[in-house]
This record gives sequence, structure tokens and C-alpha cells, in this order.
Amino acid sequence: MFDQYKLLSNINTPEDVKKLKLNQLELLCKELRDYIVEVTSVNPGHLGSSLGAIELAVAIHYVFDTPNDKLIWDVGHQAYAHKILTGRREQFAKNRRYKGLSGFPKMSESPYDAFGGGHSSTSISSILGMAIAAALSGNTSRNHIAVIGDGSMTGGMAFEGLNHAGSANANILVILNDNGMAIDENVGALSNYFIQLTTSSTYNSFRKKIWKMFSHKDDRGYPIRNVIKQIQDTIKGSILKNSNLFEALGFRYFGPVNGHDVVFLVKVLRRLKHIQGPKLLHCVTIKGKGLQEAEKRQTLYHAPGKFDKETGKILEIAFEPGEIEKYQKVFGETICELARENEKITGITPAMASGCSLDIMMKRFPDRTFDVGIAEQHAVTFSAGMACEGFIPFCNIYSSFLQRAYDQIIHDVALQRLHVIFCIDRSGLVGEDGATHHGCYDLAFLRCIPNMIIAAPLNELDLRNMMYTAVKTNAPFAIRYPRGKGVSNNWKNQPFETCEIGKGVCLKEGKDLAIISVGHIGNSGLQVVDTLTEEDIAIGLYDIRFLKPIDEQLLHVVCSRYRIIVTVENGSIIGGLGSAVSEFITTHNYKNKLKIIGIPDRFVEQGSIEELHKECGLDYDGILKTVRQLLSSTLSESGFTGLPSDASVLNCDLSD
Amino acid sequence: MFDQYKLLSNINTPEDVKKLKLNQLELLCKELRDYIVEVTSVNPGHLGSSLGAIELAVAIHYVFDTPNDKLIWDVGHQAYAHKILTGRREQFAKNRRYKGLSGFPKMSESPYDAFGGGHSSTSISSILGMAIAAALSGNTSRNHIAVIGDGSMTGGMAFEGLNHAGSANANILVILNDNGMAIDENVGALSNYFIQLTTSSTYNSFRKKIWKMFSHKDDRGYPIRNVIKQIQDTIKGSILKNSNLFEALGFRYFGPVNGHDVVFLVKVLRRLKHIQGPKLLHCVTIKGKGLQEAEKRQTLYHAPGKFDKETGKILEIAFEPGEIEKYQKVFGETICELARENEKITGITPAMASGCSLDIMMKRFPDRTFDVGIAEQHAVTFSAGMACEGFIPFCNIYSSFLQRAYDQIIHDVALQRLHVIFCIDRSGLVGEDGATHHGCYDLAFLRCIPNMIIAAPLNELDLRNMMYTAVKTNAPFAIRYPRGKGVSNNWKNQPFETCEIGKGVCLKEGKDLAIISVGHIGNSGLQVVDTLTEEDIAIGLYDIRFLKPIDEQLLHVVCSRYRIIVTVENGSIIGGLGSAVSEFITTHNYKNKLKIIGIPDRFVEQGSIEELHKECGLDYDGILKTVRQLLSSTLSESGFTGLPSDASVLNCDLSD
Repeated sequence: MFDQYKLLSNINTPEDVKKLKLNQLELLCKELRDYIVEVTSVNPGHLGSSLGAIELAVAIHYVFDTPNDKLIWDVGHQAYAHKILTGRREQFAKNRRYKGLSGFPKMSESPYDAFGGGHSSTSISSILGMAIAAALSGNTSRNHIAVIGDGSMTGGMAFEGLNHAGSANANILVILNDNGMAIDENVGALSNYFIQLTTSSTYNSFRKKIWKMFSHKDDRGYPIRNVIKQIQDTIKGSILKNSNLFEALGFRYFGPVNGHDVVFLVKVLRRLKHIQGPKLLHCVTIKGKGLQEAEKRQTLYHAPGKFDKETGKILEIAFEPGEIEKYQKVFGETICELARENEKITGITPAMASGCSLDIMMKRFPDRTFDVGIAEQHAVTFSAGMACEGFIPFCNIYSSFLQRAYDQIIHDVALQRLHVIFCIDRSGLVGEDGATHHGCYDLAFLRCIPNMIIAAPLNELDLRNMMYTAVKTNAPFAIRYPRGKGVSNNWKNQPFETCEIGKGVCLKEGKDLAIISVGHIGNSGLQVVDTLTEEDIAIGLYDIRFLKPIDEQLLHVVCSRYRIIVTVENGSIIGGLGSAVSEFITTHNYKNKLKIIGIPDRFVEQGSIEELHKECGLDYDGILKTVRQLLSSTLSESGFTGLPSDASVLNCDLSD
Repeated sequence: MFDQYKLLSNINTPEDVKKLKLNQLELLCKELRDYIVEVTSVNPGHLGSSLGAIELAVAIHYVFDTPNDKLIWDVGHQAYAHKILTGRREQFAKNRRYKGLSGFPKMSESPYDAFGGGHSSTSISSILGMAIAAALSGNTSRNHIAVIGDGSMTGGMAFEGLNHAGSANANILVILNDNGMAIDENVGALSNYFIQLTTSSTYNSFRKKIWKMFSHKDDRGYPIRNVIKQIQDTIKGSILKNSNLFEALGFRYFGPVNGHDVVFLVKVLRRLKHIQGPKLLHCVTIKGKGLQEAEKRQTLYHAPGKFDKETGKILEIAFEPGEIEKYQKVFGETICELARENEKITGITPAMASGCSLDIMMKRFPDRTFDVGIAEQHAVTFSAGMACEGFIPFCNIYSSFLQRAYDQIIHDVALQRLHVIFCIDRSGLVGEDGATHHGCYDLAFLRCIPNMIIAAPLNELDLRNMMYTAVKTNAPFAIRYPRGKGVSNNWKNQPFETCEIGKGVCLKEGKDLAIISVGHIGNSGLQVVDTLTEEDIAIGLYDIRFLKPIDEQLLHVVCSRYRIIVTVENGSIIGGLGSAVSEFITTHNYKNKLKIIGIPDRFVEQGSIEELHKECGLDYDGILKTVRQLLSSTLSESGFTGLPSDASVLNCDLSD
């Protein structure tokens, strides 16, 4: 396989990179590029970012003494070249696959991955921790490098790290990998600032020009440069130091440099290696570099799926008639329908516009749609501010990234009972992005927050109706749904119906055992029920719909009619639906046996969603197996009265 | 009462402020200052910050049309003058008291409080949401003002807000209230930068100097100013625009100005009112302004408790012999003892050094103690970086502020199973700071995270031993304890003992009913047990010590021996100890009735800790009452077998 990669086939560690001559590095970069394209064309991954960071990876490993010198890739999906150069060349073919390589740097995978990636803006904080640790240990020669994209730089955490690093005088090098893009085009003032720095009136050329200007003599015949000396402190403090955002924060700023000129990068890094203290190298790169199609359509090629490695053309999978569309599409179309009817509706997302399909609204209602960049905290409180003014913001954030805005949900939204609608995309297991990206905890971390309404749709129609209901409900309202396809395309242009808040539904009555599910995973429950029905085993199935407020009337019915209850959720087994049902059983002194099916209390790695559901017993087979076991092991147990402690609660009609 | 306040006694709304002549404003400020000193001297509050923001409050309300114009105070403990001027003069006497005024701006309290405060760095995001909402509604004349301290500006969220605002061209005015302090002296590069801006070589004087310099003629007889025109773009882009951090982010920067010159502030604000777009006014203020003692000792007078209003002298409450010390002191002394023995131990806190007593370590081990400023996210990941290098960081954060670092706990610490020790101070109800500051959710939001160890000490000795144990346990380790006093001073210089991870203890055996508690609140359980013992009612009491991993052996014993279980925790009734015990009961098919005592599922306002515990039924009386009710209502119920499903688990010895 590696015959065509003359240099790369001999690179097993960064030591082998160092053995190359400087003028061989360009070829190595070309081979890396070809190899990444070859692999990702058939085994999809984060193509664009990684193509843009090849020269950086080669130059860093050529110059620095990794893994002794510490190297952290922020987010880390741009680190494919780094992975290939650090002993994972063959394994890279199984990048992001089940039991294969993680798509992000991972400490347990390689000593060259100094810190795990996945979520953005963590690299400066973590590298600073290492740098100060080294200094405390008396090691002042070690280098500490964080490579961070311009998108990640907008995350507040990066700023917190810069602020500390700039005053700590630690030996760190931050490499700003500036390609002008996050997943979508980068937004915000910082982005504009970077463009200014890198266009004709750059900082450097400015410095040159002003220096040249000062070579003129003044009217007394003295060079203006002498004037400068008179106000040296001012000049130092203000032009040379503060005229740059990073220098204002205590960093020495270098650049901008061409991040694809590997030879020049090596020279620059060699010089920087010997400069102590916090420093920032601004590299300008092109996302998708080297693959023409990817350079042209950068958002699309962020993670393009399979493509033709020669032409770069994405292998369009023809949309079959009747093929199911994704929940994301349902969200994107539905918010537009709602926004058309109600001019107070706005859409907000922190840098996930294309992923969550808010880009549909962005095209149709550009004034009311806000991609605020990688800034989850701001996204939530910005939404809260809008809600104060009578607007109805839909704030769409992936479940695992919502963790970044936890305090803002509590402090700025729930406490003030503001009408912010959280559409929590990518909840549950997300597949190939792995442990850092699974949305396991939202049910648990939201359930304890007062005033929150937490809903989860069983299908597309539910999602639409829950969004519709949320608009009409003046309270903090969370709707969580998974990545990927729903169950039917019958949602299109359907009239909206209001959901009753806190009301679950009986999908199937049965006896002995009832499944209570929340969200899309209830469809697997339906399959299980169907299978057992064919065997004349009648179990019950209830879709709780709202985790909070939970349908106590329904739970009274279920707890009194069924001996065994199985809860099913695409979320942690701790703190979510299972806990809620458990609390209900014990508080009301029911005697049911409960089995909680969900994501186990450990970090789940990457793989296809199907593989991971199987691993966790969360798929049809797993749920069926658990139900069968429970039925067979407990049917023989001592009698179950079937009666609730308080029979008065039973006069409820579940027929609807 | 208000006779001495000639002007203030007639100020009922900001309209009344506007009726004053410009030259009366200084007197109004003096009266406000006197009144705030008078009230806080007997009813403690956040003195220093509020004394520093009096002129700002007066000038803003004099110039702007509040509440139509929107005014947000970041954090908001500096907003006492604002509260007094906006119809809450008399109520201010009950500031921070039970059923009295909140110590922070609060939307439900006044229309003049445009957004609630409490946690820092939220004002720019929220005011931007309002400004964009106004623009969408076609209102371009309304003003939007956020007042934010230099401490709050270090929070990453503020940067996220600036980044969006600077590119959104919204009509907002950010007033930087720069007193060089958070609670403790402000830290970080930004702080140094602000000092530079406000010292002799300021931005403004630099601009003047360079302009003067350019008035010289060059060697061809042309004024240098003409040269500038040739490179106008460069100058504009780099000197005038980018030479300031805020201007780099798209804000127009004004200042620095003296934040105590109220007349000048009025003039400046009047001018700024008519400048569209995002702008920042840099005001230099003095924390504690006007009270000599408070100006001198700013950290101490952040919230000094009672003091003499004439001299400013803090009324020292003599420490009685035998008086119980605070958990904070135990933490501060113990970490020093541990650090003395182990040079790898470090202490990290985001701007809570004096509050959590890490300042003790800071004095004794300055190299190993890090106050990173208001930057919770960074604090956690910085700690993670240190842990990667074999250091053992104690990261001390208040429970409610830890919400800011939730993602970092999951993604950077737990997922990588790093040895970071979280000392979670101010867990449970915190008292006068109220709803925004109660630490209600940590048990729930931490319990669902894999790999976490969660411990809570019953008393001071436990806290010491848990800290000692955490040092020896290579895993993420959280120790949560409340604000305030423990139970005994017998902890001093006691030898350390290792706690067995995941092992609870039986404090008292009994029958029928058992209390299981977690943490300090178990002491109220002990009192309850004592009372009932005197009445010959023997209930059991178990201190679980570790919420995670939970002591299943102990729970088997309790569930099989006692019919009724009462869990007691100083945390939300959802997701914490009660849920864990409930899950255990239902999963193992025990039949116990469970009552969960904790903080109810609603936001609890301010008051003394005692008042709030009483309100929530979390005090001795409340727990006793609940226990009595349970005993009397269920003793007559049908028989309880007392036998576990699986008797084999019972061969455990609880005697230790």
C-alpha cells in the first residue's frame, strides 16, 4: 500500500522526520496530503482542517523534540498528519472506526498526544498547565506548543488561557492556525481583526513603513528616529507592544506567515524555539489545501463523507424516493415555517449552522439568524437577552457542547424563567466523533434545574409539534433529539398540533412488563413490542415525551399495572429517565422492579451509531434481550398485587 | 431616617435624579455614599464595589432614559446606588435579608433591573441580545449600557460577547469599571494591560504625542502629517484602530476617565449617547471610594461584615475560646500541611483565594498557588494540564461557579481520568447571596460523569482525611463542603487517615427507619437521632461519605433492615443522593419507602443559612418533623419482610 509513498513509508516516528533533509519536507507534505486524501476518500473524516495543517505538523515535528516537548492540537481534528507521523500510519486507515483510531488526539492512544482534543479552545489552558509544571520541576528548556484555529480562538476559554499565560511568563508557543473558517465561515470581530492583520496593511508591513517614514529628517535636520527615542516608552508601550491584540495580552506576536511554506515554517520555528516566554505565531493556511474542490467549498469539505480521491468530487448518494430525512432537516424546515408565522422567532447557534441545519433559516431569514461563532456561553445568554425583549430565540447547540453553557442555562435562563427554546441536537451517542462528542449527560444535567421543560420527540412529527408548542409556552424549553434519521417523511407540510406539557402517551398496553422510553429510541421499543406481540407476549410501551415535568398520572398507571418497568433512554443511566421513574416508584412506595437501559456509566468510544448502540445494549436486540431476561427471571417470583397505594389516581384515561 | 439626606430623600425614581442640577450631583453621590455606609455597617453587604460605582450610577441615570434605555450591571453587587435610586431606598435597609431585597439586580424586583446578576461576565452577551432585539424591532434610538468590572472582563464569556458585539454593529455602550480588583487583586495579562492604559504612557497621551511629533516637517520641508496621509490605511488600521485591544475587537474605545468625577462622567456619557455602534468607556474607579479604611484594604472591605460607620473599623467579633472554625480554614490549613509533605501539590482557584482560604497557601507556597482570575473554565483545564505532568492540583471553586466549568470537568479531566482534586466550596445553600449563589446542583451534575469520585465530609476531620485520601488516589476526586462552620476544632494537627473510597459508615443502628445523609448535614441527622433516642425511638443513621462510588454493601444492609429510608442532602432533591438510593432500591427490587429531603425543585432566594434550611425543611426541626410523620403514618402499614432479594450480600461487617 505504501509503495507510492517513498518518504512516508519510512516515517515511523518523528525521529524519522528529523532525518530528512530540509528540501525533502515538501515531498513529505505532498505524500501526507495524498495519503490523507486516499484514506478519507473511502473512510470519511475531517478532511479540510487536516489538509490545512500538514506543513505545520511536519515543521513542528522536524524542529521540536516531541514527545518530550509537549504538543497540543486544539480540537484536534486537524491533526491527521500528526497522527500519521507519530506511529499511526497504518492504523489511520481505521480512523474514527469502531475499535480503530480516535478522530482526535487522545492521551491513551499515543505519548505524542500530550492532551486529548474534541471540544475547542482548551489547548492554551492545558499547555500552560504543563509549562508551569515544567518550570516548577526546574525544567526550563522544554518547549510547549499549542496549535489553535482561528475558530477556536473565539471561544472564551481560549481568552482566559491567553490572559493567564500572558502574565505567567511561561515558555509556551501558541500557533494560530488561521484559515478564516470554523466549520462554517468564521464570524465575529476577532475574525475581522485577523483579516486586517493578514491583508496588505499588516502589522509587519506597518512596522516597516513607519520605520521607513521615520528615516526622514525633521525640520531641524534630525532624523525623526531620534524623536522616537525621546518618547521611547510610549512607542514601545503602544506601537510595538500594544498595537496588537496578542501583545496587549502579554504575548510576543510573530507573523503572519504562510502556513504552507514548510521550509519557511521550519526556519521560523527554529528561531522561536530559542525565545523564552509566551509567544504567538500567526500562520495563514487554507482549509482543504491541495484538493481543489475542498479549497473551493470549505464548509462542505470540512467533513465531506466519501469522495473521489482524484477529482475530489463528493460521491453523492442518490436520495432514494421515500428515504428518511434527518431530524436536522426537520428542525431546519420547521423553524422556518414557524418564523414565517411569527416575526419574533430568532435562531441562534454557536458555529453549528450547517451541522444543525440552521443554515436553512439563515438563507431565508438572515436578519433573524445568528451564528455567534464558537461561543456557547455567549449564545445562551445572548438568547436570554433577546427573550427579555419579547423575542423567542431557538438556541440550537449540540448536547455535548451545551455542557459549555451549563451555568448560563441555570443562571441566565432558568432562574429568570426566560422563554428560550433549546434545541439540543446530537443528543445520545453520536457515532464516529466518539467519547468527546456523545451527548450523554443533558437529561441528567437539565433535570435538576428548576423551571425547565424537557421534551424529546419520538419522531419527526413530534419534533415539529414540540417546537410549535415551545413557541407557545412562555418558559425555558429544551427539546433533545439525536443525530441522523427519523422514522418517516410524513412530517412535511403537516399542520401543527400543540403537545400538552408534561403529558406522556401509551403506545401499547400490555401486562407484567412495561417499557417507558424517552425520545427517538422509543422506536426500538416499538420494534421489541411488535416482536413479542407476534409471540403472544403483551408488554406495555409508554413514551414519556416530557422528562420534566414528568407525567405522574401516567406513572401511577404504569407502576400499578406492571410488575416490571424497563426505562429506555439514549443518555446516561444516571440522573435521567431511569432515575426519575425510580424516584417516583420509591417515593410513592410502589414495589416495581426497575431496569434502567441507557448509556452505561463509562466513556463510550467511537464507532457507528449502530455499533455503539449494540455495545451498550441500546439497540433493538439489546432491549429485546433485556426484556426477555426480565420476563423469564421474574415471572416465577412471588405475587404482585397490581394495586397502587393510592387507587384514586387511577381514574385517568390513557386512550388518547 | 432620611432627614440627613436632603437630596436622596426626594429621589424616588431616576426621573427625580434628572430634575437635579448638574452641580447637585456631587452632593447626591455623597449622600448615597453615606447611606450605603450607614446601612451596610449594620446590615453587611458588598461594600467596596458599590462605593466605587456611585458616580457611575448617578451619571447613568442622569443621562439615560432608564428603564426604557437598558442598563445591566455585571455581577451586580456594585449596584447598590442603582437600587437606591430606582425606588428601593427604604427596602435597601433589608438588603440581602430573608424576604428582603436581593443583593444583586433582579428582573422580578424592579423594571430598572434589565437583567439579573450574580455570576460574572454575562452583561455584554445579555445587553447585546437586547440591542439586537431592539434593532430587529426597528428601534434604533434606544441605548444599551453594560457596566462591567475589570475582574469580570477576564471571564471568557465577556470576550465571547465582545467578539460578537464588535462585529454586530449594535448600539451598545460597555462601561469598564476598572478598579484593579476582583474580590482579590485582579490578575492576568488583561489587568496589566489596563494598568498600562491608565498610567502615563496611555493610549490617549500617546496619540497626542505622536500627533505632535508628526507636526515636525520632514527633510523635504513637508509636514510629516502629509506622510501619514500616504499611508493612511496603515495608520488607520494599525495605530488608531488596532492599537487598543477593544478597538481590535471592533469597539470604539474612550478613556480612561476618572470614574469619580460625576460631572465629567455626565458630560462624557451625553456625548457617547449620540455615537452609534459598539463603544467602550474605560472608567478608573477606586474600590471602597470615600471610606478610608475600605480604600486601604480593598479585599477585606469587599464584604466586610459589620463595621463602625464613622471610622470604618470592622467590628471584630472576638473569637471565643472553643469557637468552631470554618471549613474554609480547615481547607486552607490542611492543603498547606499536605503541600509541605508533597512538593507536587498545587493550589488553583479562579478569583476565590480569600473566600476559600487558599490565600493561606498563597502566602506559604506562592510558587505553587495560582489565582487565575475569574476564569473557571481555564482553572479546571489548567489543572488538568498540570495533572498530566504528575502534579496534584487542588482546584478550589465554589459549587455554583463550578457550573461554569462543567464541560471541562467532563472533557478534560474525567474523560482522561486525570488526578485533579476539586474542592467544592459553598456547596448547598449559601445564605445571603441567594438564588444565584446556592450550590444546589453539583451532586446531580457530577454524579452522571464517569470516573468521578464524589465525597462529602461530615466534619472537619473528614475533610482533612478526604483531602489526604484524594492526594493518594490517582483519579478525578471531588470533595464538597458547605460555607461556614463545622462542628469541632479537634482537627488541628491531627494525624491523617486514609478513607476507604466508596465506603460509608453507620453512625447509629436502629430499626424501622434509617436516615442516609451525605456531608455536613448529617450532623442535623445526628441531633434528630439523639432526640428520638431519648424518646426510645431507635432509628438508624448512615453517613454515605461517598456519593460515587456509592457503598452498595451498606445500602444492601440498610434496604434490608429498614422499612423506611430518608435521604438527607444539602443539594437538589433531583439527581443526587436521593436518586442514587432510589435507583438502588428499584434496581435491586427492594420494597422500601423512600423520602428524599433536600433543596426543593425551585430557586431558593436569599436569607441566613438557618432561615433557608428551615424554609426547605433541611434543618433539625424539619428533618425531625418528616421522620416523625413517616414513622406515625407507616408504622401501621402491612408487614415488611426485612429480607433482601439476595441475602448473600449481607455478610458485611459494619462495625468499623
